[in-house]
Amino acid sequence: MLHAAEEIARSLGQDAVSYDDDVLEHHGHSDWSTSNSPERAVAVVYPRSTSDVSAIARICSRRDVPMVPFGAGSSVEGNFSQPHSGICVDFSYMDSVVAFHPDDMDVVVQPGVNWVDLNTQIASAGLFAPMDPSPTATVGGMVSTNCSGTNAFRYGTMKDWVLNLTVVLADGTVIKTRRRPRKTSAGYNLTSLFVGAEGTLGMVTEITLKLAPIPQDTSVAVVPFPTIRDAAAAATELIRSGIQLAALEIMDEQQMKILNEHGSEAVRRRKWAELPTLFLKFSGTTEGVKSDITRISDIVHATTGGRAPFHFARSKQEEADLWAARKESLFTMASIRPPGTELWSTDVAVPVSRLAEIIDWSKRECSKLGIFASVIGHVGDGNFHVAMMYDPKDAEQTRRVAQCVHQMMAMALEMEGTVSGEHAIGIGKKDCLRDELGPETIGLMRQLKRAVDPKWIMNPGKVFDW
Amino acid sequence: MLHAAEEIARSLGQDAVSYDDDVLEHHGHSDWSTSNSPERAVAVVYPRSTSDVSAIARICSRRDVPMVPFGAGSSVEGNFSQPHSGICVDFSYMDSVVAFHPDDMDVVVQPGVNWVDLNTQIASAGLFAPMDPSPTATVGGMVSTNCSGTNAFRYGTMKDWVLNLTVVLADGTVIKTRRRPRKTSAGYNLTSLFVGAEGTLGMVTEITLKLAPIPQDTSVAVVPFPTIRDAAAAATELIRSGIQLAALEIMDEQQMKILNEHGSEAVRRRKWAELPTLFLKFSGTTEGVKSDITRISDIVHATTGGRAPFHFARSKQEEADLWAARKESLFTMASIRPPGTELWSTDVAVPVSRLAEIIDWSKRECSKLGIFASVIGHVGDGNFHVAMMYDPKDAEQTRRVAQCVHQMMAMALEMEGTVSGEHAIGIGKKDCLRDELGPETIGLMRQLKRAVDPKWIMNPGKVFDW
Repeated sequence: MLHAAEEIARSLGQDAVSYDDDVLEHHGHSDWSTSNSPERAVAVVYPRSTSDVSAIARICSRRDVPMVPFGAGSSVEGNFSQPHSGICVDFSYMDSVVAFHPDDMDVVVQPGVNWVDLNTQIASAGLFAPMDPSPTATVGGMVSTNCSGTNAFRYGTMKDWVLNLTVVLADGTVIKTRRRPRKTSAGYNLTSLFVGAEGTLGMVTEITLKLAPIPQDTSVAVVPFPTIRDAAAAATELIRSGIQLAALEIMDEQQMKILNEHGSEAVRRRKWAELPTLFLKFSGTTEGVKSDITRISDIVHATTGGRAPFHFARSKQEEADLWAARKESLFTMASIRPPGTELWSTDVAVPVSRLAEIIDWSKRECSKLGIFASVIGHVGDGNFHVAMMYDPKDAEQTRRVAQCVHQMMAMALEMEGTVSGEHAIGIGKKDCLRDELGPETIGLMRQLKRAVDPKWIMNPGKVFDW
Repeated sequence: MLHAAEEIARSLGQDAVSYDDDVLEHHGHSDWSTSNSPERAVAVVYPRSTSDVSAIARICSRRDVPMVPFGAGSSVEGNFSQPHSGICVDFSYMDSVVAFHPDDMDVVVQPGVNWVDLNTQIASAGLFAPMDPSPTATVGGMVSTNCSGTNAFRYGTMKDWVLNLTVVLADGTVIKTRRRPRKTSAGYNLTSLFVGAEGTLGMVTEITLKLAPIPQDTSVAVVPFPTIRDAAAAATELIRSGIQLAALEIMDEQQMKILNEHGSEAVRRRKWAELPTLFLKFSGTTEGVKSDITRISDIVHATTGGRAPFHFARSKQEEADLWAARKESLFTMASIRPPGTELWSTDVAVPVSRLAEIIDWSKRECSKLGIFASVIGHVGDGNFHVAMMYDPKDAEQTRRVAQCVHQMMAMALEMEGTVSGEHAIGIGKKDCLRDELGPETIGLMRQLKRAVDPKWIMNPGKVFDW
């Protein structure tokens, strides 16, 4: 493996390769992740172009050395860990906007571009890329995990926003999946095959993203409910109404308590009801938003018999404060955890009608463990996250938390759900994926993987095993 | 091949197999299609379940016999023709709704279900499947061509509405691509690999479709413009405004002339301006539609300096009449063609900013041929159809029409477009696909095909060659 790194250094230049221990550690482990591997890459390499990446792949392929693509390191299932060591390919220097086509509403970027920066750059054209994962995420990683976030309810997931990809295959071959039309039915949908493949089929080196027009206006409302079930029932009514909400999120009573006690100054301007709470985002024309708020408020009133007070933002400042409560929640929770404890954060999705049931069940199971756990959900998509606080040095507690997560996955599958709504599989959920899809379907994925990467050197040990 | 058919008859019953010449002809040739093959299947077989289909595949695989899936026969690129003969698998008897989950907004159907019937069945739940191809199309065929239609501008294409697929592979293995969550990032996106694969990777035997809420209200407006370029420029402004139109279509002056002369009674109630005309569909809440109409009318007024008269439907009857003009256009044109002539209909898509240019160019080239040609476009997606009337017995004219279509494809590719926006590749556009994607990308598709269907017996001769 070291020989491969040295050959890459000769080809790309010495400064394109690092063997520094801190660098290797930073690229091999994440405190945010629930799944880490003790192994580390032998070197981190820094390509600056598709042809650099192709050179890396040709060298690694000739020497049978694993390649592990690395974006921002913000994934949480060990997606970039290196259980088989190898070469870590860091895309930090491939961070250019290659071409912006405002009239076509698309943009061509390199994988190292951060999505928040991108949206700042293109905002003056009235356009934006709608996916909103971790603010640190880069487009390459967002493609590879098929990320989403709060905007998915209105805008779908990453796969819906990628027009084409340039990909370097394991042997160094460069392919482009499509040209640049917004719509096509020409040939196999290779774009969607690489989106969410977690770098196991090749390394993405250029991405054309569809963009959406920035809505003329937005607003936010919050509605506390007596129980999670009441909240979920109301959410179902809202979805079925056909009113196009921009986001529909849920936070449980634990999360709301944390807001009151530990939220930022902006968030603590308000005294939050410590009850399961729906967060609604509206977007559209100014008139449209107004009329949507009226109709949604009526539906909530009718569904709950007036028992759930509907509160919408009366100013832009209040709108920002209300939404901040939702966006800060994970960070707030992470910041208050006692020294030595970790957060085990997981992510499942079920058909929408089963959401209340599985959230209820998960909360009951967690409370049996006597540990702090709380729920945030993209309720509009049937997708929710549970974060459990535990002490990784307490082996018995760790085992029980892991078991609880496993049972949650089993329950999601019983409900015809999925073991990963938006975090992908990585090394953390391979068993669960097998349970979800069964041996025939995994067998087909394996056949495809072998066809594209016969030496099994692209990000090995992820998604499923040989 | 006949032995395979006989073995299928023994396995599924004699009435599951037909050797009738008329039946074979009907399954091997289409007047609607621009691409047909002179070969015919040796038999048409009629499975009634996934396990029937699996039995057929096991028999054909053992005997190396091609299988060609057949839906409604409404595709237009020879997608179901049988250039290598074999067994035609007709899904007419697999036409059940397996399960309807209104609370989850999805429905599980067999491939032979017609989409118009499906939407009629589920309308009382306030839900619909939004793709609108030919009214005769069945869901299986819609999946296999990644169809779309006028609703694609708002709702995307077929790939965006398929939650999971049950697929019988070439060797008879049955796989299910996913369970039933609305959102997932678990494993490779096999669903999108089979959507648009035209049955070359396997036969789809069950489909779970996402459904959308039926909008509370709709309306339609028409706006004639002096030139196609003016119309396209206005369309770009409308798209960028961020107002969510339900559809944005264009018809050229030839189409409008046909409406005046040959439209149905409802359509001829109105005297149409014989100019390039935008057809706009609005949908949403009643208030939202009203406010959208006002804003769109303002934008059109501002963009054109008031030269384009914006007319919106003032009653439900008028709304239906206006939209009928758009929906009837292809049939009207087909019905008035002189005896002996055929329509060569083709479909390309380009980045939206290039649409006016390529439509202009196409119309000029057609007029040089001295034949009747007209354009209908899904302008919101940069996708348009040209229909050319020609005499297939006139070899020189046929050659020149074919050449003109080929040049149109080349022009679309120069503009970074695609050779097929929604009709797929079939046997008609294999050369064009090679031009579009290049040998490396086609090479990857071929590797995937070989991995899944090593004997190359699933719908051979389509999309690309061995």
